[in-house]
Amino acid sequence: MHAAAHPFDRALHLDHVEAGVVRGATEPAWANMVGPFGGVTAAVLLRAVESHPDRIGDPLALTVNYTAPIADGEFDIALRAARTNRSNQHWILELRQGGEVKTTATAVFGLHRDTWADTEAQFPEVIAPEDIPRSEFFDFVVWANRYDIRFTEGAVPDDGAHSESSTSTLWVRNAERRPLDFAALASVSDTFYPRVFLRRGKVIPAGTISLTTYFHADRAQVEAVGDDFVLGSAHANAFSRGYFDQSAQLWSRDGVLLTSSHQLVYFKD
Amino acid sequence: MHAAAHPFDRALHLDHVEAGVVRGATEPAWANMVGPFGGVTAAVLLRAVESHPDRIGDPLALTVNYTAPIADGEFDIALRAARTNRSNQHWILELRQGGEVKTTATAVFGLHRDTWADTEAQFPEVIAPEDIPRSEFFDFVVWANRYDIRFTEGAVPDDGAHSESSTSTLWVRNAERRPLDFAALASVSDTFYPRVFLRRGKVIPAGTISLTTYFHADRAQVEAVGDDFVLGSAHANAFSRGYFDQSAQLWSRDGVLLTSSHQLVYFKD
Repeated sequence: MHAAAHPFDRALHLDHVEAGVVRGATEPAWANMVGPFGGVTAAVLLRAVESHPDRIGDPLALTVNYTAPIADGEFDIALRAARTNRSNQHWILELRQGGEVKTTATAVFGLHRDTWADTEAQFPEVIAPEDIPRSEFFDFVVWANRYDIRFTEGAVPDDGAHSESSTSTLWVRNAERRPLDFAALASVSDTFYPRVFLRRGKVIPAGTISLTTYFHADRAQVEAVGDDFVLGSAHANAFSRGYFDQSAQLWSRDGVLLTSSHQLVYFKD
Repeated sequence: MHAAAHPFDRALHLDHVEAGVVRGATEPAWANMVGPFGGVTAAVLLRAVESHPDRIGDPLALTVNYTAPIADGEFDIALRAARTNRSNQHWILELRQGGEVKTTATAVFGLHRDTWADTEAQFPEVIAPEDIPRSEFFDFVVWANRYDIRFTEGAVPDDGAHSESSTSTLWVRNAERRPLDFAALASVSDTFYPRVFLRRGKVIPAGTISLTTYFHADRAQVEAVGDDFVLGSAHANAFSRGYFDQSAQLWSRDGVLLTSSHQLVYFKD
């Protein structure tokens, strides 16, 4: 791939190995503290399905299980359609390095059709991203510099103060602008730092174990966002005995609910 | 299995076939309109992991993808630990009938440890189950008769009235009393009828595609519930072009958040 490609597209580049196996490589621009950013791993798994010749429809649901850290370098993704129905398709994926399973995933793709529709979730009341400075959100973490993030509430705590609320709300787009697509949505679903940092007022060991994203928007709605900001809001329900959950929503600026996502996170405190 | 066993335990009975394969059978007491109740399918998949000799720890997360209707009769569950870490373990499962994949699943099991803890979600304000009559919740659906369900809000609409809210809150226990365990929690996570019925004021074609449950409670907290009611509350975020999501929480009567769960549902309307 041309070195001048967008960093996100470099991270999503896949080569065909054999039927049902594609090969990618970690992209230094998306490095996390250990291994790559989990969002970009979710995105490359989604892209593996999107680029499979048997794929029908668009993403409806994606569950990614982070089983072990991905080492810098190449990885193989084995994928197969476990079941193809008339209007939807179920995929199973495994990301491997040297025979070791580093990530497992299931994905549901499907066709959309016209139905009654309503968004019951409420678009958060926020000020425009143009009125908020860009956050220095973990600028020591490489991947965080790929995003232009502007918090409207729940910025990363820097004063040791505990928060009573685990909610963060933020505008986010690629720092190097790029049109939104489903893979980008999968990645942005994981841009919320661990909710336990906010509640405890400090950075502590924490990592996503399992991430599920539901895609509410269809292709036209995703493309309509272009390279504009999307609005994200995340909160936790419960912290208990080493684990907590985190639920998030991503919205377009004009109020289309693009995704809802949920994750289970381990922590030590 | 003895015919006098509890109907739920009959549905969860598994025989060893070979390494990594167990065999179960649909239980008529849990029949749905087509195939078995999705909750009991989630439960039998969880039980397959729980009863595997290599399993470590307790359930943390379970994602079940309903790929095709399960026919009445026997089924095989193939399962393997994709990865075992020091404190958690990742499983992949497939439920098959005659070579066809009917359900896929991933499960995360793990060890709990003492940490800071807090429940941020709010226990709903409700009246006690003793003060509410048992619902005639879809009594034409076989499995619904297995549960004693008492709605505090959002009962099944019977008058064609649309509701502005998709929220249902209910007390639920086994009609034939049985102590709560993780498998039972997996099943109860799916007892909420499709949210679209409530919004549209009618029963329409709808079915769960993917269900994810996070287990917040440890074994002692689950066992402390005994055979008492648990409180469940479910709502939807968005209905769009043939699909909607549904998020739910299950609580013990004394305010322990037992699970949070999420599902993607297709509908026609």
